[in-house]
Amino acid sequence: MARSLYHQPLSPYCRTVRLVLAEKRLAFDLIEERPWEERDEFLNLNPGGTVPVLVDDNGAVLAESSAIVEYLDEVYTAIPVIPGTPAERGEVRRVALWYDLKFGREVSGPILFEKADKRLNRWGEPDLALIRASVESMKYHLEYVSFLADERRWLGGDLFSLADITVASHLSALDYLGDVPWAQFPDVKDWYARVKSRPAFRPLLDDALAGLAPPRIYADLDF
Amino acid sequence: MARSLYHQPLSPYCRTVRLVLAEKRLAFDLIEERPWEERDEFLNLNPGGTVPVLVDDNGAVLAESSAIVEYLDEVYTAIPVIPGTPAERGEVRRVALWYDLKFGREVSGPILFEKADKRLNRWGEPDLALIRASVESMKYHLEYVSFLADERRWLGGDLFSLADITVASHLSALDYLGDVPWAQFPDVKDWYARVKSRPAFRPLLDDALAGLAPPRIYADLDF
Repeated sequence: MARSLYHQPLSPYCRTVRLVLAEKRLAFDLIEERPWEERDEFLNLNPGGTVPVLVDDNGAVLAESSAIVEYLDEVYTAIPVIPGTPAERGEVRRVALWYDLKFGREVSGPILFEKADKRLNRWGEPDLALIRASVESMKYHLEYVSFLADERRWLGGDLFSLADITVASHLSALDYLGDVPWAQFPDVKDWYARVKSRPAFRPLLDDALAGLAPPRIYADLDF
Repeated sequence: MARSLYHQPLSPYCRTVRLVLAEKRLAFDLIEERPWEERDEFLNLNPGGTVPVLVDDNGAVLAESSAIVEYLDEVYTAIPVIPGTPAERGEVRRVALWYDLKFGREVSGPILFEKADKRLNRWGEPDLALIRASVESMKYHLEYVSFLADERRWLGGDLFSLADITVASHLSALDYLGDVPWAQFPDVKDWYARVKSRPAFRPLLDDALAGLAPPRIYADLDF
């Protein structure tokens, strides 16, 4: 059977899994799922009702992005995304979890919901005060990315890893909305340009959502 | 050097790490950290400023509970808490993440903040409407625990695992506040009695917070 990923195009968590699959050179079909429709067939795959969900070519069903990534790194070991010793792997996971949990809750989650989900699904007017507060708190988190990009070759250490993939997934979704203040964070911009030029990133830059066009720089490698 | 865990007593995420260490028979010192005080020494260990943080006896520093657990399961393999094939391990992680993420956001996070953190730190009056809504949404999540406990030997599959540890960590913290409706969920109660009687659980039942006593059944194995 074909490997399939149920996803939402702007979800940072889905983007992380897409990038991990692509970095590992694993082919997969991309299936857009609208989890809020609560399709029975989808709830049978994941009773939690969230995307991403991976159905691997051996029939294994995986849900929750970090569980999917751990599974992929265990089964497809040729190109690891959580490389190194146990302590180095712990550091990669720490950085990834910071952005999946804290940045997701304070920044990317609210901005994507207010600006993209509400508009695409006609769920009402965006809460502008919440968007402003989330854009403001983005700066603290970008300062930490800037610090890491300055101290290390890649965000999780010497090697490209899930830390880079996770942070780039969140920022790429916000960049689609034109909401990343690149000019204020040149170290972050330089690091992101390196990630963006990787072949695995290309399909994300080709994403286009009906009714919500990205700014010109979104797909521009020399933004 | 001695292995040390920086923690908060009622944090479900800290309780998970304490239980994993105890199940693996790893000795450790428990250090109570008040992350909101933002001590410099603590921020040097974890710039994210959250508990739990583990300093292992080899000097490795780990932050974010799921990164700590993955590290411990990689280094101390004699007693695994994420057992089985990659797909089985993925299922254990899926259940654990459901409760760490969704249950944490909708139920245990708000209840513990409103009822325990505010009272212990004199941060103002609890939001009673928020507590009621969180207790109400607990039921949906306990129904799923009930389903799993009925279908499987343990919540993540045939073997005791991180799935049981994580769900028990969240419920034990709420049980300290007397907020788990055990009588309505007999399957959950039976499963929890089995977890609670494990030797690794004993230190959690001996926890006592100044100014906030647990109900009698908290430490009772025949509750």
